[in-house]
Amino acid sequence: MLIVSEAAVAELVGPDDALAAVEAVFAGMADGTARNFPVVREALGHADALYGFKSGFDREGGVLGVKAGGYWPGNAARDLTNHQSTVCLFDPDTGQCRALVAGNRLTALRTAAAAAVSIRHLAPPDAAVLGIVGAGHQAAFQLRAALRERPFRRVLGWNRHPERLEGLAAVAAEGGLPFESAGLERLGRDANVIITITSSFEPLLRAEHVQGPTHIAAMGTDTRGKQELDPALVARAACFTDEPEQAAALGECQHAVAAGRLETAAITPIGEVIRGRHRGRGEGAELTLFDGTGVGLQDLAVAALALRRAEAQGMAREVAL
Amino acid sequence: MLIVSEAAVAELVGPDDALAAVEAVFAGMADGTARNFPVVREALGHADALYGFKSGFDREGGVLGVKAGGYWPGNAARDLTNHQSTVCLFDPDTGQCRALVAGNRLTALRTAAAAAVSIRHLAPPDAAVLGIVGAGHQAAFQLRAALRERPFRRVLGWNRHPERLEGLAAVAAEGGLPFESAGLERLGRDANVIITITSSFEPLLRAEHVQGPTHIAAMGTDTRGKQELDPALVARAACFTDEPEQAAALGECQHAVAAGRLETAAITPIGEVIRGRHRGRGEGAELTLFDGTGVGLQDLAVAALALRRAEAQGMAREVAL
Repeated sequence: MLIVSEAAVAELVGPDDALAAVEAVFAGMADGTARNFPVVREALGHADALYGFKSGFDREGGVLGVKAGGYWPGNAARDLTNHQSTVCLFDPDTGQCRALVAGNRLTALRTAAAAAVSIRHLAPPDAAVLGIVGAGHQAAFQLRAALRERPFRRVLGWNRHPERLEGLAAVAAEGGLPFESAGLERLGRDANVIITITSSFEPLLRAEHVQGPTHIAAMGTDTRGKQELDPALVARAACFTDEPEQAAALGECQHAVAAGRLETAAITPIGEVIRGRHRGRGEGAELTLFDGTGVGLQDLAVAALALRRAEAQGMAREVAL
Repeated sequence: MLIVSEAAVAELVGPDDALAAVEAVFAGMADGTARNFPVVREALGHADALYGFKSGFDREGGVLGVKAGGYWPGNAARDLTNHQSTVCLFDPDTGQCRALVAGNRLTALRTAAAAAVSIRHLAPPDAAVLGIVGAGHQAAFQLRAALRERPFRRVLGWNRHPERLEGLAAVAAEGGLPFESAGLERLGRDANVIITITSSFEPLLRAEHVQGPTHIAAMGTDTRGKQELDPALVARAACFTDEPEQAAALGECQHAVAAGRLETAAITPIGEVIRGRHRGRGEGAELTLFDGTGVGLQDLAVAALALRRAEAQGMAREVAL
């Protein structure tokens, strides 16, 4: 079997690669050729950790595997990433373990890629201002991937602690774009694309904040109880997601669904738009929302890409199992 | 991280080690210090494969991990084991991947160990005749582990194709014991300990076959629909298992429970007997049954043992992840 390290993933997979892999597997999910298995997610009762598995099978891609890992809040103090992930890929013809792929950078890339896919297919074509809500580790990945999808002219950022926005300003500068710290009201009014990537448990963006044709990629909510958006904002939007059932249960849509303001059946899998079976934004539509809940097939698609590249370039280490 | 190969597991872990590890974790489960997480089990719709995960956390042992794998019926034709398993162990304090342990031999050892634990704690003390029903790959492991738990004097074996019993005769000969092919009627009558380890979907041992003080370890049924025993036999027995809910849902007990002849609450976790909180066979009891459904913590316990041994003996291969 083969080992693909964090260093190899960082060297071999960029935002464009991750986007192509995630876009393809979202399309496969809509076609029914790729399927996520039930998610296991458990509070350990130790180190305040959440631990679990996301897994699935992409028949067309020949990708079978599992991402194991979770969230260890005490890691930062040890100079480790709080989110720890490892991907195992198996040969779908025999079940043998084919590769172990380091999953930390890969997870950041695939989450950013999902939002970027949604921007590609749902954002107003002439979107000029990108807003980003949140400034943690993941936000820089989100911004970098998003900037490739439209010729944005400037970036607005909001964070509860505005002094932490510096890293995002640096990412905007990489793309030659001006960056400003902004209040949520101004950000909601001026931005045509908004990415939310926080760990909030209460609405940040309110319905009245968001004006004009806008696409929101809500990427922070992946657990029951988390929330970044006013349910009235969600109810007003044309809603898209990776997995509708998951969005309704633990994504940003959970609150509008629980309040009876959104039906699960009205949440469209983004793959339908990618495949051209759903018109997406459509003409005259104002507000689109992508509820990015995160599915195992995203991880596996990017891991399989990293493995192919690593094999081709001699960067996968072979070990006997 | 560390890699522990199939060859290393075979060299480092024997039946006695596996029994001690499985016995300890069954006790931890009864104490509530070790917990299995929900099982994922999916038909792939490819290569007729069943695929899934068993996972858990043993707080006292500091063991966290997952066994991934499944059943690929076409493997035998490729000279591979049909059951393919791989274990990932994680550091419970940080979530980092600590080791990948080859899982095929380990799975065979832990399944045999579970039956052996049940024989140790539930079989009639003076059991002299061991019966084994089934002669597949796993049966030899079961027989080898069981023979260590009582001073058996002979072994009776049944298989649908009796010519396949040769391998078991060889295992009995290792222990200096005579081996005979027998009909189910004679095996049920003469044996004091019976292990069933088939892939049957209909009862093999009937209630009238089994006579006198007997312990049955039913190890073959791990899926809805599989069945090795007459439900009347199960209803007559004092029932023990690894996980009562799992036994009632997909173990041998499922049929007696479905027929209303057994309550889930009447199935005792074997850990209660190991801890001395349940008397086990008790005086005058005739028939005991251990329904071995297989839990992730068994795999993890044996994998953690293999890892410790491999580290101590320099047989774990270190790779950068």
